[in-house]
Amino acid sequence: MTPKVAIIGGKGLMGRWFKRFFESQGLTVLVADKDTPQTPQEVARLADVVVLSVPIPQVEQVVRQVAPHLHPQAALMDLTSIKVEPVAAMLAHFPGEVVGTHPLFGPATKSIKGRTVVLCPGRGEQWLNWLRGFLLEAGAQVKITSPEEHDRLMALVQGLAHFVLIAVGATFRHLGADLKELEDFATPTFRTILDLTRHHLSQDAILYACIQLQNQANLSVLSGFEEVVQRLVHLIHHQDAPGLIRLLEEARGWICGGEG
Amino acid sequence: MTPKVAIIGGKGLMGRWFKRFFESQGLTVLVADKDTPQTPQEVARLADVVVLSVPIPQVEQVVRQVAPHLHPQAALMDLTSIKVEPVAAMLAHFPGEVVGTHPLFGPATKSIKGRTVVLCPGRGEQWLNWLRGFLLEAGAQVKITSPEEHDRLMALVQGLAHFVLIAVGATFRHLGADLKELEDFATPTFRTILDLTRHHLSQDAILYACIQLQNQANLSVLSGFEEVVQRLVHLIHHQDAPGLIRLLEEARGWICGGEG
Repeated sequence: MTPKVAIIGGKGLMGRWFKRFFESQGLTVLVADKDTPQTPQEVARLADVVVLSVPIPQVEQVVRQVAPHLHPQAALMDLTSIKVEPVAAMLAHFPGEVVGTHPLFGPATKSIKGRTVVLCPGRGEQWLNWLRGFLLEAGAQVKITSPEEHDRLMALVQGLAHFVLIAVGATFRHLGADLKELEDFATPTFRTILDLTRHHLSQDAILYACIQLQNQANLSVLSGFEEVVQRLVHLIHHQDAPGLIRLLEEARGWICGGEG
Repeated sequence: MTPKVAIIGGKGLMGRWFKRFFESQGLTVLVADKDTPQTPQEVARLADVVVLSVPIPQVEQVVRQVAPHLHPQAALMDLTSIKVEPVAAMLAHFPGEVVGTHPLFGPATKSIKGRTVVLCPGRGEQWLNWLRGFLLEAGAQVKITSPEEHDRLMALVQGLAHFVLIAVGATFRHLGADLKELEDFATPTFRTILDLTRHHLSQDAILYACIQLQNQANLSVLSGFEEVVQRLVHLIHHQDAPGLIRLLEEARGWICGGEG
């Protein structure tokens, strides 16, 4: 059986990415978005697998709209970067199979080969197993975990990593740094950080604000980072060489193995 | 004329790197370090170009030791990551030509081709011009600036970039993050930041503590970063979506061009 897939929000960057991907694997894909001939409800009714590719704050509203129209044997999945609330919303409003899904890559990715997709089982195993096998067959790596564990890990993998790049970019602006001049004097490390910062900030500000704001696990990670930043600035301000060297060596032990 | 070069601190990683480099370009290189048959004073006496490749806090002391032994027509240069104090120390204790030098790459670099070397003229032009031509001939990019301007730029290029990586590593330790688990769930951005952090922390803790502590221009940059981090955490803590989106868009304007 070749399942029919409906992508709701299928005109967005990730929606278009997954349309191409599913089609390249031989599936039939229906697409609904704000300006499509078919409505979300219509495509939801016709599909075996309904994929929500909508911004995080819209997940619950779209779930409420489409859930009553899904076939009872269909699967409902999302593609958002957080999993606790979206999976809870899908479970609350749709009584069938639910799979929270988070592709750990962006729409500029050429192929799914070697990329990771996280699956958070919501309800049921039939479609979960199909999706897992389908992704593995296409060359993806699949990680299966709970929504809570996913969000806890993403608070570091996305929350902290994005936060740092946003903070670096905002610091350049805050200090009025001349980036052309800095590029002339760039070390390889600085060049990599600047490229990451530029790449990150060039993308959808609303999406990245959502990733910061909507993962409830972020705040304790970001507060931890803030504390460490304050401690480091304090050590440097007070020219505390032994304290700074100790902090560097302890971090090295943790990150690089050894005495940590 | 083929100048004879003396490298003091020639057994360290950068000292060995520059010994190989100078020799590969046909120069004769003498080396002195703590455990070499020849003392720093002896090699200094015999050389046309005396290169100090010693830790930042030792520059002044080594300058005092060797300066009286240099030929009056010789050049004195250093290789440290900050320039204001080392250049001032060389100028104060040696009356001949002085060139502050900062290679913007580490000892793992294979070739100088395409890499940047900053030169800060201290006194005299003969050896400065020779060094500039010699580096350009070998394929390096050469930037010439004042020690003050160098340190101001390096507070961002090295001070801030290293600080961020140290803070990320120390945050992983602070939060007890399981790095093996995080690697399984890594996005490409996270993987790059983790690799940079690990690479940075695996190196000489004392060197990187010095780079943080000895550049007088760092503190205002790092305090600026701390302020931005606090502002961002505040916005996220208060779920201020419009404020966060505005900050992201302003940073984007500055970094990526456009409205900044």
